[in-house]
Amino acid sequence: MDLLKEKIVKEGQVYPGNILKVDCFLNHQIDCTFLREVGKEFHRLFKDEGVNKILTIEASGIAIGTVVAQEFECPLVFAKKNKTKNIAGDVYSSSVESFTHSTTYNIIVSEKFLNPGDKVLIVDDFLAIGNALKGLIDLVKQSGAELVGCGTVIEKGYQHGGDALREAGIRVESLAIIESMNDETGEIVFRD
Amino acid sequence: MDLLKEKIVKEGQVYPGNILKVDCFLNHQIDCTFLREVGKEFHRLFKDEGVNKILTIEASGIAIGTVVAQEFECPLVFAKKNKTKNIAGDVYSSSVESFTHSTTYNIIVSEKFLNPGDKVLIVDDFLAIGNALKGLIDLVKQSGAELVGCGTVIEKGYQHGGDALREAGIRVESLAIIESMNDETGEIVFRD
Repeated sequence: MDLLKEKIVKEGQVYPGNILKVDCFLNHQIDCTFLREVGKEFHRLFKDEGVNKILTIEASGIAIGTVVAQEFECPLVFAKKNKTKNIAGDVYSSSVESFTHSTTYNIIVSEKFLNPGDKVLIVDDFLAIGNALKGLIDLVKQSGAELVGCGTVIEKGYQHGGDALREAGIRVESLAIIESMNDETGEIVFRD
Repeated sequence: MDLLKEKIVKEGQVYPGNILKVDCFLNHQIDCTFLREVGKEFHRLFKDEGVNKILTIEASGIAIGTVVAQEFECPLVFAKKNKTKNIAGDVYSSSVESFTHSTTYNIIVSEKFLNPGDKVLIVDDFLAIGNALKGLIDLVKQSGAELVGCGTVIEKGYQHGGDALREAGIRVESLAIIESMNDETGEIVFRD
């Protein structure tokens, strides 16, 4: 998605440790006009798959999930990172190791919202190691729903989480795949 | 907003302890087609105020913030509940006491994203005691931006957080205000 790549180059910042900050348009301040185009692109890619539910994870996946669900005219479900008082009843649960925060957390989805017969598209802002996606995929499997595929906005290709998922037979579409970054020059190289 | 009240009555569930669960359309599974109408309603209410930034708080405020920001064609900023590695530089910070979770947490917004000259509309899914809104208002004050007002989807009128904010001179618009609920009959009474 050329518009996204241009935005990453223009507005993103590269920090040591292969950190790309796009918090000015994607995951802290959000450019919702731009995000609508992201929603349309995921719809274009997955529109023939019968998707009837979008699944994402709090927090930064929610804005993306919202615009994608608007395009598909279907509900969005977001996995929560901790069990809260206000989730009653039974939940699907999976454990996710966070590369960014060096910790492990549980993600949960109420059993009410994922069911056999659902055709689920998972979306998220970033794909690096792929642990969050693996957790979400696990929730879909537990529910008996069908996983249509995963759509991520920015994939860090050099961390190979996306490659591993594709090798496992899962359709993963990333709107921009970063092959390498240079924190001294700020240069960003995309995968073709 | 009649459509919202109908949805609360039809799809909401009342539990003991004055708990209203609307997780089937507002804050776990999200009806994004319906949410678009919520965005339009907040735009109708605040469209003459020169709003150039929407502020909300993770996680369940983000979907609402997204649709509102789409209507105003301006950026959404969401406050984060914990300082993460990927937020570099200076932040505005405030402390919020959670009634739901019986705990206190910090909320932060990068100083980059709230500035003097900004006209900020705060939005959230629920207004009860009003502590989250107070924290967000504090962030706006710290930044020197102008607070236009607060828009919440569902206000629990019987907890009087909204009344206190209005008495303090802040414009608070809630699309449905619940005056009382009965967990035995499921009856929900709205404020006129």
